[in-house]
Amino acid sequence: MAIAGASGYAGGELLRLLLAHPELGVGTVTAHSKAGDRLTTHHPQLIELADRTLEPTTAETLAGHDVVILALPHGASAEIAAQLPDDVLVLDCGADHRLTDAAAWQRFYGTEHAGSWPYGLPELVHHDGAKQRAALPGARRIAVPGCNVTAVTLALAPGLAAGVVAPDDIVAVLACGPSGAGKSLKPHLLASEILGAATPYAVGGVHRHIPEIQQNLQLAGGAPVSLSFTPTLVPMSRGILATVTAKLTGDAGSVRAAWAGAYADEPFVHLLPEGQWPTTAAVLGANTAHVQVTVDEAAGRVVAVAAIDNLTKGTAGAAVQSANLALGLPETLGLPTTGVAP
Amino acid sequence: MAIAGASGYAGGELLRLLLAHPELGVGTVTAHSKAGDRLTTHHPQLIELADRTLEPTTAETLAGHDVVILALPHGASAEIAAQLPDDVLVLDCGADHRLTDAAAWQRFYGTEHAGSWPYGLPELVHHDGAKQRAALPGARRIAVPGCNVTAVTLALAPGLAAGVVAPDDIVAVLACGPSGAGKSLKPHLLASEILGAATPYAVGGVHRHIPEIQQNLQLAGGAPVSLSFTPTLVPMSRGILATVTAKLTGDAGSVRAAWAGAYADEPFVHLLPEGQWPTTAAVLGANTAHVQVTVDEAAGRVVAVAAIDNLTKGTAGAAVQSANLALGLPETLGLPTTGVAP
Amino acid sequence: MAIAGASGYAGGELLRLLLAHPELGVGTVTAHSKAGDRLTTHHPQLIELADRTLEPTTAETLAGHDVVILALPHGASAEIAAQLPDDVLVLDCGADHRLTDAAAWQRFYGTEHAGSWPYGLPELVHHDGAKQRAALPGARRIAVPGCNVTAVTLALAPGLAAGVVAPDDIVAVLACGPSGAGKSLKPHLLASEILGAATPYAVGGVHRHIPEIQQNLQLAGGAPVSLSFTPTLVPMSRGILATVTAKLTGDAGSVRAAWAGAYADEPFVHLLPEGQWPTTAAVLGANTAHVQVTVDEAAGRVVAVAAIDNLTKGTAGAAVQSANLALGLPETLGLPTTGVAP
Amino acid sequence: MAIAGASGYAGGELLRLLLAHPELGVGTVTAHSKAGDRLTTHHPQLIELADRTLEPTTAETLAGHDVVILALPHGASAEIAAQLPDDVLVLDCGADHRLTDAAAWQRFYGTEHAGSWPYGLPELVHHDGAKQRAALPGARRIAVPGCNVTAVTLALAPGLAAGVVAPDDIVAVLACGPSGAGKSLKPHLLASEILGAATPYAVGGVHRHIPEIQQNLQLAGGAPVSLSFTPTLVPMSRGILATVTAKLTGDAGSVRAAWAGAYADEPFVHLLPEGQWPTTAAVLGANTAHVQVTVDEAAGRVVAVAAIDNLTKGTAGAAVQSANLALGLPETLGLPTTGVAP
Repeated sequence: MAIAGASGYAGGELLRLLLAHPELGVGTVTAHSKAGDRLTTHHPQLIELADRTLEPTTAETLAGHDVVILALPHGASAEIAAQLPDDVLVLDCGADHRLTDAAAWQRFYGTEHAGSWPYGLPELVHHDGAKQRAALPGARRIAVPGCNVTAVTLALAPGLAAGVVAPDDIVAVLACGPSGAGKSLKPHLLASEILGAATPYAVGGVHRHIPEIQQNLQLAGGAPVSLSFTPTLVPMSRGILATVTAKLTGDAGSVRAAWAGAYADEPFVHLLPEGQWPTTAAVLGANTAHVQVTVDEAAGRVVAVAAIDNLTKGTAGAAVQSANLALGLPETLGLPTTGVAP
Repeated sequence: MAIAGASGYAGGELLRLLLAHPELGVGTVTAHSKAGDRLTTHHPQLIELADRTLEPTTAETLAGHDVVILALPHGASAEIAAQLPDDVLVLDCGADHRLTDAAAWQRFYGTEHAGSWPYGLPELVHHDGAKQRAALPGARRIAVPGCNVTAVTLALAPGLAAGVVAPDDIVAVLACGPSGAGKSLKPHLLASEILGAATPYAVGGVHRHIPEIQQNLQLAGGAPVSLSFTPTLVPMSRGILATVTAKLTGDAGSVRAAWAGAYADEPFVHLLPEGQWPTTAAVLGANTAHVQVTVDEAAGRVVAVAAIDNLTKGTAGAAVQSANLALGLPETLGLPTTGVAP
Repeated sequence: MAIAGASGYAGGELLRLLLAHPELGVGTVTAHSKAGDRLTTHHPQLIELADRTLEPTTAETLAGHDVVILALPHGASAEIAAQLPDDVLVLDCGADHRLTDAAAWQRFYGTEHAGSWPYGLPELVHHDGAKQRAALPGARRIAVPGCNVTAVTLALAPGLAAGVVAPDDIVAVLACGPSGAGKSLKPHLLASEILGAATPYAVGGVHRHIPEIQQNLQLAGGAPVSLSFTPTLVPMSRGILATVTAKLTGDAGSVRAAWAGAYADEPFVHLLPEGQWPTTAAVLGANTAHVQVTVDEAAGRVVAVAAIDNLTKGTAGAAVQSANLALGLPETLGLPTTGVAP
Repeated sequence: MAIAGASGYAGGELLRLLLAHPELGVGTVTAHSKAGDRLTTHHPQLIELADRTLEPTTAETLAGHDVVILALPHGASAEIAAQLPDDVLVLDCGADHRLTDAAAWQRFYGTEHAGSWPYGLPELVHHDGAKQRAALPGARRIAVPGCNVTAVTLALAPGLAAGVVAPDDIVAVLACGPSGAGKSLKPHLLASEILGAATPYAVGGVHRHIPEIQQNLQLAGGAPVSLSFTPTLVPMSRGILATVTAKLTGDAGSVRAAWAGAYADEPFVHLLPEGQWPTTAAVLGANTAHVQVTVDEAAGRVVAVAAIDNLTKGTAGAAVQSANLALGLPETLGLPTTGVAP
C-alpha cells in the first residue's frame, strides 16, 4: 500500500496502523516539500521504517500498488487521484470527494467540485435502517470522512434514524486536539498558544465540515438538518469530544434503545453503560468511538456525546477499516480497539 | 479581611489578590481539616505569607474583621455566616445564598434553603436596562456567583435583555479547567486522568449551576429560560470557555449592538473586535471576561462565547470586586485586568 | 493469565497488551478495595472486557492460571507470591523482589527483605558482554524493573560496560509523567497541581529506585557506582525522559560505538540516528526505548538520554516481554513497537 | 517607555508588567514584520491597549523615550541600540551585550561581538560577597540575562560564593516551557509535538546560554567552571525548573547556610523551608525565584533547584527590576511577587 502525504500526522498514523496490519504492507511513502527526507525525521515513532525515504508525490511514484491512500490537502488529492488506474483502491483522507452536493462544495470551498466517492463511514445508519457499510465492498474509490464529522455523526445519527430527535435545530460543540489541524506552521497552533487555553474557531456557520455533517445526518433522518457547529481547540494532542444536542421529539423512554440498537453489533462504536460518559483518553490511538446519550426533559433536548481519536477513528483507522471492507478482508483486521489510557 | 477556607484554591486566589490590594489587608486565615498547617504548605505561591498558620474556621477566629470571605463547601457557609455580626461584610463564595427560589435550591441540593443574599455579578444586565451593580453598595451580605454561571451569564445576558434572542431553547457547552472542582481527592481529578482527556460531567440537566444560570438569564430577559447545559473537563488548570447559543429572534444586524451596548462601559467585561474569539489564556489570573458574538443565519442561532478564569473573575476576583462596591471603594481597586498569556 | 491489582494503571496497561497478545489470554482480574466493581468503571478503554468484574486479590482467586502478574503495592506482592505454586510463572511489577542486597532493601524500605528473583530487563548488558536476557528462559519468578530504573539503566549501561564512562559520579535527572505514581489520591497528583508545573520530588538520594539503578549499573560496569538521581513531575500523563551524564574516561571517538554495539540487535531499544534526540511522544504506548548519546568534551562528560513509556516498556510491556522469554515464546510476541505520536 | 519587538512573548509580558507599574508608562510599541498590526491581534490579553498599533522598529519610532526595552532577536538589538542616545536607558532582553568575553561570543554565535553592558541580575552574589545589584544604579545600558541562565545561576551561585561546592563539574538539567523559544514558526514548537512530550535539545555543550552561565558562576566562585547543560522542553507554556548539582567540597552542615545567607534579604529570590521543593506553578507570572538545596552525601553532591517564570523573572520582570534600579526607583516597584497557582 502506498501513502501519499506521509510526512503529515495522518500519514504517520496510517503507517503506524499498517505496521501492525497482517495483510496490508507499507509500500511507497511520498511527500511534497519534504520529499527526499528520511521518514523518521518527521515520524520518530516509526522506528521500524528507519530506512525509508520520502519520495515525491506523483502518479509515477504511486504506481504499482493495489491500494493508495491519499493524505493530502484538499484540492491536491483530486488531481492525483485522477491519474491513478481505476482498478487501484484509492482512499482519500481529504475533503475532495466527500460531498454529493456540488453547490455545497462550491459554497464552502470556492472551487470546482471533483465529484463524490462512496463514503467511508461504515457505521452511519441510514433512514431505512441500512448501514453505510453496504456501499464499500468492492469499491475502488472511497472518501474517508472528516474527523469532526465522524464524531458528530456517530453521536447523533441513531436518534435521527429512529425519529426520536428533530433534525431542525441541532447544536454541536466540540473539544478538539490540535493534531486535527495538521502540521501547518500557523501561530495559533504553537504550543505556547494552546497550552492552558481553550479557544473556539470557525464560529458561526463557516466551518467546512458543516455540509458534510448535514449530508450524513440527512441520510440518517431522511430530512434536511439545520446545525449550529462550534469546534474549540483544547490542550491535548489528539482527541475529539463532540457534545451534540437536538430537540426531543419522541418518547424519552425510547431514546436509549435507539442508540443501543444502532450500535449493538458494531465492533468499533460502543454505547457506554448508563451513567458513564465518554472521555477522549479512553480511545487514544484506537479505532473506537465511545458514545453516550441522555434526555434532559426540562430542556426538551437529547444530549449525545461521542469521543474519538481524530487521527485513528477520525482518519487513518477509518481509512484502513474501509480498505478492509473494500478488499473483502475482515472489517476489523489489524485495527486497535483499546485506547492508550491514561 | 478574614478568609475562611483558605487552604483551597479559591482561598489561595483570594489571598493572591488581597496581597496586591491597597485597601483590603490579609487578616485571619482559617481552614477545616488543615487547621494548624502553615499556609504556604498548601499555597507555595503565597511566599509573602510564609509566617502565617491556618486557624480553625469558627465564629471566634473570624471575629474582629470588617470583611469576611467564605470559601467553604455549600452548607458550611450558611452555618458560619449566621454567627457573624450584621455589620460585618460577609461574602459567600459558595452556593448557599445565591438562589432566590427555595424550591429550586431544594430540588438541586436536597437540603433546606438558607435564604438569598444580594448577588455579586455587577455586570449582569437586567431586563429594564439596570445593572446588578446597583444592589451592592452598602450591602453587608453578598452571594458570589458560581464560576460556570458567570461565564454563561456574561455570554448571553445582553442578547436576552435586548430581545434579540429567545429564552426558550438555550444550549451551553463549556470547556472547564479542573481547579473549579477544588482540591477534592477524587480519582477523576487526578492528573493522569485529565491530561490528554476531554470529558463531560453532570450531563442532562442535573448540574447544580443550572437554576442559578436560569435565575440570571430570567433577570436579563424578563421571562423563564430553558437551558441545556453541559460542562466538560479539559487539560488546563484554570479557565472556562462557554459556548452559548440561542435562537435568533430579532434582526441579525442588531445583535452586535446589543452586546456592545451592554458592555461598553464595563471595566472587566469586553466585547472583542469582530472576528477575534475569546481564549481562556488571555484572561488567566485576571478579573476579566472576554466575550464575542456572531449570528449563524443558516442555523437560525446566535453564538455567544465568553472566556474567564474560574478562580479570578469566576470566584475570588468577583468577591473582591463586590467587596469594593459594598465598601464604597472604586470597583476596580486592586484587581488585575491583564491575563498572564501565553 | 491472571492480573492482581487490575484496577490500577499498570493493571490496565497489562490488560491492554494482553488483549492484543496472540498467546496470553486474560483470565482472572483482581483488586483490593475495588473488588466487586466492573472493570471498565476503572478502565473505560478496556471496552472489550466490559463484562468483567474485579475479584478480590487472594491465592484462591489467582489459582488455576499458568501465569500471574502482580501489579500491587510493595509488600503486598511478596505476601501473595509466597502462596502461589512454584510452577506458576509469577511476574512482580512491584519492588519486593528486585534487589539482591538485603541491606539496601532494609535501608530504603525499612522492612524485611523478601528475597530476589531473576530480573526482567533483557537488554541490560553485563560487564562480561552477556545480556540479562539469559536469566529469563524457564524462570518461574521474575522481578519486573522499576520504570525510572529502566530509563536510567538503558541510557547509561552500554557506556559502563564498554568502559568509556566512569562509574563514580553519575548524575541522572528525569522528567516523568504522573501515571508512574499510580492512582493514589494524593494532593500533589491532582491535575490542578500538575498542569503548568514542573516539580522535583524525592531529591537528595532518598528515592527508592536508587539502589536498583546502582545494582544494574554495577552489573554493567563491574564496579560500584555513585549516583545523584532527581526525578521531576511534568504535565504529561505517561513518559519518562532520563538525562544521564557520566564522566568520560575513554576515547570520545569510541563512545557512540559502545551504545551502537550494545543495542544493534535489540528489537525494543534503539540508538537513534546521530543528532536526533529521544522524545517521550515517540514511544507512547510502545514497548520501545529510544536512546541517544553524545560527548560534551568541554565538560568532560558523556550525556546519554533515554525515553520510554513508564507504563509500557517501564512496566506492563516489560512484564509481557519477560513472560514471553520465560515461556519460550518469541520475545516480541504481541508487543507494540510504534509509539502513538503525536 | 518604548518596547521594541512588542509582538513577541517577551514584549507582551513587558507590556503586562508596565500596565501595572506606577511610574513607567507604555509609550511606543514596535515590531518588525508585524508593524502595522493592532497590538491586541498578537496579545489579546492586553485589552487595555486595544487602541495601540505596532510601529516599525527604527531609531526614529523609538526616539523621545527615556527608557527603551529591546525584545529583539540577537544581532538586531546591537544594531538599533547603537542608534539611541547615550542618556536613554536601554535594556536589551537579547543576548548581544551579555558576554564580556568576545571569544566566547564568537565561538557560540559566530558573529562579531557587540561589546558588553552592565548585567541585570541584581541577586547574583559575587565571590567577594557583593551583589551584582551594585552595578545598576545610574546605568544607561543594561543586558538582561537569559532565562535559562537566570535559573541556573540563582540555583547554584550561593554555594560557589561560599566555597561549599566545586566549580569543576557542574551538571544542570532543565525542564522548560516552549514560550522561552518565542513565537518562531518551527515544527518542534507546534502544540501537537509538545503536548505529551518531554524532549531535550541543544545537548552536549552547544547551547548558547552556556558561556553566560559560566561567566556568572565564575563571578560567584572566583574560578572557571565546567558545566554540562541540558535543557528539555516539557508541556507547560511558561516556566523553568533547573536541577543543578555540583560536588560537595565544604562541610555538609554549612550548605544550607550559604544559600540562606545569600538570599535572606532578597525580595524576589526565596530559599524555601526545608523539605519543600520549588514548582514552576508557584512562580507563574511573578518576578520571583524559588530555590531549594540539599546534600546527597552518598553521591557526594549538592543538589540545588530553582524555579522561575521564563517570561517574568526570566526576562520581562528582570528588565523592569533593573530599570527600577537604574532609575533610582524602589527595586520592587510594580512587580508581582505572587505566582498565579494552581
